[in-house]
Amino acid sequence: MDKLKETLGRIGVLDQKAMRAAKERQDNLTKPLGSLGRLEELSILVAGIRGTVRPDVSAKVIFTMAGDHGVAQEGVSAYPQEVTRQMVYNFVRGGAGSNVLARHVGARVVVVDMGVAADLDPHPGIVVKKVGRGTKNFAQGPAMTREEAIRSVEAGIEVFAAELDKGLQIVGAGDMGIGNTTPSAAVAAAFTGLPVEAVTGRGTGIDDVRFAAKVRAIAQGLALNRPDPKDPLDVLAKVGGFEIGGLAGVILAGAAHRVPVVLDGFISGAAALVATELEPKARDFLIAGHVSVEPGHRAMLERMGLKPLLNLDLRLGEGTGAALAMGVIDAAVKVLNEMATFGEAGVSEALG
Amino acid sequence: MDKLKETLGRIGVLDQKAMRAAKERQDNLTKPLGSLGRLEELSILVAGIRGTVRPDVSAKVIFTMAGDHGVAQEGVSAYPQEVTRQMVYNFVRGGAGSNVLARHVGARVVVVDMGVAADLDPHPGIVVKKVGRGTKNFAQGPAMTREEAIRSVEAGIEVFAAELDKGLQIVGAGDMGIGNTTPSAAVAAAFTGLPVEAVTGRGTGIDDVRFAAKVRAIAQGLALNRPDPKDPLDVLAKVGGFEIGGLAGVILAGAAHRVPVVLDGFISGAAALVATELEPKARDFLIAGHVSVEPGHRAMLERMGLKPLLNLDLRLGEGTGAALAMGVIDAAVKVLNEMATFGEAGVSEALG
Repeated sequence: MDKLKETLGRIGVLDQKAMRAAKERQDNLTKPLGSLGRLEELSILVAGIRGTVRPDVSAKVIFTMAGDHGVAQEGVSAYPQEVTRQMVYNFVRGGAGSNVLARHVGARVVVVDMGVAADLDPHPGIVVKKVGRGTKNFAQGPAMTREEAIRSVEAGIEVFAAELDKGLQIVGAGDMGIGNTTPSAAVAAAFTGLPVEAVTGRGTGIDDVRFAAKVRAIAQGLALNRPDPKDPLDVLAKVGGFEIGGLAGVILAGAAHRVPVVLDGFISGAAALVATELEPKARDFLIAGHVSVEPGHRAMLERMGLKPLLNLDLRLGEGTGAALAMGVIDAAVKVLNEMATFGEAGVSEALG
Repeated sequence: MDKLKETLGRIGVLDQKAMRAAKERQDNLTKPLGSLGRLEELSILVAGIRGTVRPDVSAKVIFTMAGDHGVAQEGVSAYPQEVTRQMVYNFVRGGAGSNVLARHVGARVVVVDMGVAADLDPHPGIVVKKVGRGTKNFAQGPAMTREEAIRSVEAGIEVFAAELDKGLQIVGAGDMGIGNTTPSAAVAAAFTGLPVEAVTGRGTGIDDVRFAAKVRAIAQGLALNRPDPKDPLDVLAKVGGFEIGGLAGVILAGAAHRVPVVLDGFISGAAALVATELEPKARDFLIAGHVSVEPGHRAMLERMGLKPLLNLDLRLGEGTGAALAMGVIDAAVKVLNEMATFGEAGVSEALG
């Protein structure tokens, strides 16, 4: 708990001086005022997070955290649970969507076993932070103990710290876990108070029968476990997941170390809810990479006051949307750093 | 006229066989069916354009075409006309927004003088295809002759052909020209029949006085010149611009040579209208890179049935939005080429 407390206590505020200087620089670059829209906003935000008018986000890491879910027993997913383990191997071999998109934007993927239900063969590409062999079925009782919830968040903080030492200027939060839109929807419902139906979607593409089972499992889990929305660790423990906790740890550590955190979709949104309910100041260090097809994702982003950068009808997870968004954020930072000013280029400014 | 006729005649249709094969491959990659949304659609479209199930779009060119506009005399822009020439020098020195974003996605920028009002110093980085020293003020008479309109489109076809020989697998259509949202709005109104006010925006950020002058100039130009929407070259001649014609040529040449054409914002949208009204089949080879802040841009895209890829509140032009979109399209193609299939990765498929 000390590691979590220390991380929460370290989260500060945006550097207003760096942001003002970045805004001033943007206004002097050879383009009409504000004409690069969200790229300008992003560059100013990143300046405020990093505390410098000329930030650099070339060292990029996507954390793809894997975990299994006891609630998968309720028939909530279109895929068998063994796919979580199989996909971890796909990640370390570089064949998954997140690998392709991470390579495209020059990010490295850090694959973390937060709680896969199977024991994985040791591999140098897998960071093992296993809190358990999958969570328990939250439709029948709590997904994990409070201690496990804390351990999962602190594991995320540790994984972040290890990568920070290797060089890291921007992070993406990705996930893998068969059934994990189910706990994510439960987390969304717990914090927003919205009806389960309003925040539950089709995940990997389930049919009506599985969808009904999913809504029923979430409603039952919330009624049975009564997670306390004022106590985010209680929500994580009762209806969350190990990878959700791990990603919450990455998000808090990013905020604490002034590293922009790019959220992916629905599962990383659930992790961001846990993180920002623990420490609302963390919110200023987050960038919503995209808005997912999952209907509850918008509700999550609205609760955090985050406006998504991309809308490409994605619903894969793994950090794929975060990777694409990182490319755009990198572009925004390059605009700030590399464009000529009116003075440098000898270009006339706007008429009075 | 022969070059234009030949190009129009060469425009074919999407390769359905390549698209079916690309769809089949997407459905076998290690992700839930359709879960990469628009990336999957894009990769299938590019396969259909290129006529191969494994396309490559790594050779990227952004054509940034510059021209001046007689209608600038009506006080429609916040910037003096000399900025067009100054920005051309900024492009060749690599300091403009389009340069930064093109470098970011690995595209080269081809700068073309289609009709800057000043004579430019010779420079190896400037392709000179000057049709005239700026158009005439269309609020007082036609912007150019029909012969000049044809010459501008054919110049675009020639510039494309020269770059095709150097290697080119995807192109972006960018513009520079003080005052050029004014002819673009006129072109939009002429083809869509929408009221001038509905398709006219604030361009570089003009005040109410200049905005009123802009609407008045466009309305006057349309009433005086009566461009015939059934005759796209007439619309281009009466109320268009040299860079708009040049970009229409690039677009038609892209379609004719089965090279995906990524549109930028409002000016490249006007060029695309001219191109697709000349040959509706060209539409299938276009990708709308983003939707601009300019209110008339949506109307243009709707007329062409194109759904924009990004929405980042951009209104700079130069090919900036096209460059960002090219990065996403490249990512989409890499997903198709580089992701592992279920069989290759040993990952279980969805339950029945």
